[in-house]
Amino acid sequence: MAKDKKLVEAITSMEEDFAQWYTDVVRKAELIDYSSVKGCMILRPAGYAIWENIQHELDRRFKETGVENVYLPLFIPESLLEKEKDHVEGFAPEVAWVTYGGLNQLPERLCVRPTSETLFCDFYKNIIQSYRDLPKVYNQWCSVVRWEKETRPFLRSREFLWQEGHTAHATAEEAEQRTVQMLNVYADFCEEVLAMPVVRGQKTEKEKFAGAEATYTIEALMHDGKALQSGTSHNFGNGFAKAFGIQYTDKDNKLQYVYQTSWGMTTRLIGAIIMVHGDDSGLVLPPRIAPVQAMVIPIQQQKDGVLDTAKEVCERIGKVCRAKLDDSDKSPGWKFSEQEMRGIPVRIELGPKDIAAGKCVAVRRDTREKIEIALDELEAKLPELLEQIQKDMFARAKAHRDAHIWDAHNYEEFTTIANEKPGFIRAMWCGDQACEDKIKEDLAVTSRCMPFNDQEHISDVCVCCGKPAHKLVYWGKAY
Amino acid sequence: MAKDKKLVEAITSMEEDFAQWYTDVVRKAELIDYSSVKGCMILRPAGYAIWENIQHELDRRFKETGVENVYLPLFIPESLLEKEKDHVEGFAPEVAWVTYGGLNQLPERLCVRPTSETLFCDFYKNIIQSYRDLPKVYNQWCSVVRWEKETRPFLRSREFLWQEGHTAHATAEEAEQRTVQMLNVYADFCEEVLAMPVVRGQKTEKEKFAGAEATYTIEALMHDGKALQSGTSHNFGNGFAKAFGIQYTDKDNKLQYVYQTSWGMTTRLIGAIIMVHGDDSGLVLPPRIAPVQAMVIPIQQQKDGVLDTAKEVCERIGKVCRAKLDDSDKSPGWKFSEQEMRGIPVRIELGPKDIAAGKCVAVRRDTREKIEIALDELEAKLPELLEQIQKDMFARAKAHRDAHIWDAHNYEEFTTIANEKPGFIRAMWCGDQACEDKIKEDLAVTSRCMPFNDQEHISDVCVCCGKPAHKLVYWGKAY
Repeated sequence: MAKDKKLVEAITSMEEDFAQWYTDVVRKAELIDYSSVKGCMILRPAGYAIWENIQHELDRRFKETGVENVYLPLFIPESLLEKEKDHVEGFAPEVAWVTYGGLNQLPERLCVRPTSETLFCDFYKNIIQSYRDLPKVYNQWCSVVRWEKETRPFLRSREFLWQEGHTAHATAEEAEQRTVQMLNVYADFCEEVLAMPVVRGQKTEKEKFAGAEATYTIEALMHDGKALQSGTSHNFGNGFAKAFGIQYTDKDNKLQYVYQTSWGMTTRLIGAIIMVHGDDSGLVLPPRIAPVQAMVIPIQQQKDGVLDTAKEVCERIGKVCRAKLDDSDKSPGWKFSEQEMRGIPVRIELGPKDIAAGKCVAVRRDTREKIEIALDELEAKLPELLEQIQKDMFARAKAHRDAHIWDAHNYEEFTTIANEKPGFIRAMWCGDQACEDKIKEDLAVTSRCMPFNDQEHISDVCVCCGKPAHKLVYWGKAY
Repeated sequence: MAKDKKLVEAITSMEEDFAQWYTDVVRKAELIDYSSVKGCMILRPAGYAIWENIQHELDRRFKETGVENVYLPLFIPESLLEKEKDHVEGFAPEVAWVTYGGLNQLPERLCVRPTSETLFCDFYKNIIQSYRDLPKVYNQWCSVVRWEKETRPFLRSREFLWQEGHTAHATAEEAEQRTVQMLNVYADFCEEVLAMPVVRGQKTEKEKFAGAEATYTIEALMHDGKALQSGTSHNFGNGFAKAFGIQYTDKDNKLQYVYQTSWGMTTRLIGAIIMVHGDDSGLVLPPRIAPVQAMVIPIQQQKDGVLDTAKEVCERIGKVCRAKLDDSDKSPGWKFSEQEMRGIPVRIELGPKDIAAGKCVAVRRDTREKIEIALDELEAKLPELLEQIQKDMFARAKAHRDAHIWDAHNYEEFTTIANEKPGFIRAMWCGDQACEDKIKEDLAVTSRCMPFNDQEHISDVCVCCGKPAHKLVYWGKAY
């Protein structure tokens, strides 16, 4: 068992060094590998399969709301990127530029898309003429590039995978409705599928997307008490439409500008899953997103009939969940460690004695609880068990999150909490960016969002400057 | 009906100008739009949905053979691209180069991947140590960039979507097996799903992939008699492994080089579907790949009960096929033209008289045949009808292909056929590239493949030089 120990020991403990623990899990669970391209990562099968499940489930939810998928070019001509002033200022400093095609210098530089608002505007300008052409509710799955200086797997890399939805509507109301609707799709997805509670709210002016009128966000709390922005939805009003000249003829034959939104989620979600649910043995995947939900591990597999029964069991439960058999020549202990490191929600241990007794032992990854299940009840019991794990994981994540939300009524309290208590800080804010800047400067804490649902009036004055304040803000240190 | 006529008239007829017909269909069926980025196209919902179906079905077939999906970076450092001599010579002249990241010039140029052999090699070098790590059978879905001078929608564009499989094996035999296996997956997919017959064979040295030992291909014949290379599978032997140092320890503890393959299919397949099945009314989609298989079109929809029945019918058949209702305020004739242009395999016409008689009229897109179906038999009859259409479309495409295969026994025959008879030319070849070059120079005809299955000895001598010849080659003008 020396080998098994080594595998587990190789991970730094969360309490000791959370950042190192994260890096260890990402590598040891074989989610990614580093590449020869600085700042770009390789998604290995175990990592990409999680993304495939995220895609599959999000895409289904999108299509239920009428979204259609498209694919736009990877490149944006410099002149197109420059059409909307705020937008180009936000993105130009961090894009990669293509200057040569083959052996020839290009007449105009092309940037590798950091996001595709400008391309969609250019496209919509061509295909929208009449109110009959509206709304357009398009989305694309692709990769984008942002030339970040500091990178971390999943959380910040120079290239990452995402979806970007871009919509055009006849009225401001409809655009606002779609912005909120997609934020809710994101929030429900995070809570129902990733078992990750989120706070839904609006970004401040300082934190909103370059070119947007309003940015809505979902913010999750990681195990170490830092916040992670997990999905955003932007209402552009008709700003982009004016910059790009996207107009339609309404029912009264008058020319109108369209109203637009965009919304995105990325492979960053995989980082969130790791940091919300992981433990010192590695990854812990919520069953609904786990590429393998149950790993069958035979004990004394060389003994007569063990491997055959294991295969048969795996095949049977394969009909009710995503199951796999580990029949490699490693020791069972080694297999347990691997299954734990990879976060597979349930392992089914099956040895000669179990088989003789017509049962097996199901071990939960999240609680390590061992449950005896009769072999002929597996198809009925296993899906129930997976659902229970999903529910419990959400409840635990929510309890942890809720236990790390602190109220601050004045700057002294705010400072103490920021320095000593990891988590979200709830505090009133006057609306002045100077206060946000000061808080960030003093405490490395940023405004995460102005929550939609629990806007309480916990004090009359801004936690920073003491002037009258009406907005409750969630603050936190963030990834 | 003036409007309806206009829609149809707007397409050039196939016989008059096939190239223009193709461009018309691509635009009028709303498969693509041009973009501000020269040579790059936008895949619109109707086009992208076909690609989604291709992806879904191919991915399923891949996974059945043990393929796992991954994602590698978009960029390749220049030094990495240069590691395999033939490969860099083949690709360097047509890649796009990133030279700036943000405001800073990069220390080394990065090319936007034209294909990812070099990145996979770099990755495999890191993760393959022992025979236990083999085989690796990875695939990625992504876009690639090749800086082509002349572009055409789907057939040749500067950026296109594809999948690229890259595998590493312990032995040359296993690599060869995988190369053939994937070609067969491609061929079966084309024939069973796209209703498109293909010739399976090997490329000549001149036409093989840059860096490969052998390239296998499937070649399809378009309606105009030109060939389209529709999928390729390459056996690299251990050439890349030696260039990149990818070695593993075998069971006897000896260091060995791995053997590699790669294989790819692209959005070009959508071009093939158009050119194999389309007609003068537009696109004709094989049912298995059609995003919408049946369009319900109400007649006199303003009359009581028509729209309600149409909705109910659409919902019912939605359970057995991909169905949609066109309840827009356009005229039925206009809707028919649109449905035909978009290639939807069946339309269900439903008017007050039909409803009173408890029936509807199903119209086949491929033959225009009208079939009365009792409303309560739709769920049973419609899937049968779709299967029949699929079968008939394959049979017609095959008959057309087979009627355009010509045998040439000497250069005079070859020349006459090349100039007068569109299609594949079967002729013997000595194996000398000089003959291939001459044929291309004289007649703009290239060797498409040396077929696996129907290697006949139709003559003793090379069709070009008259020297002894043992290889039958399919030749043709190609896209």
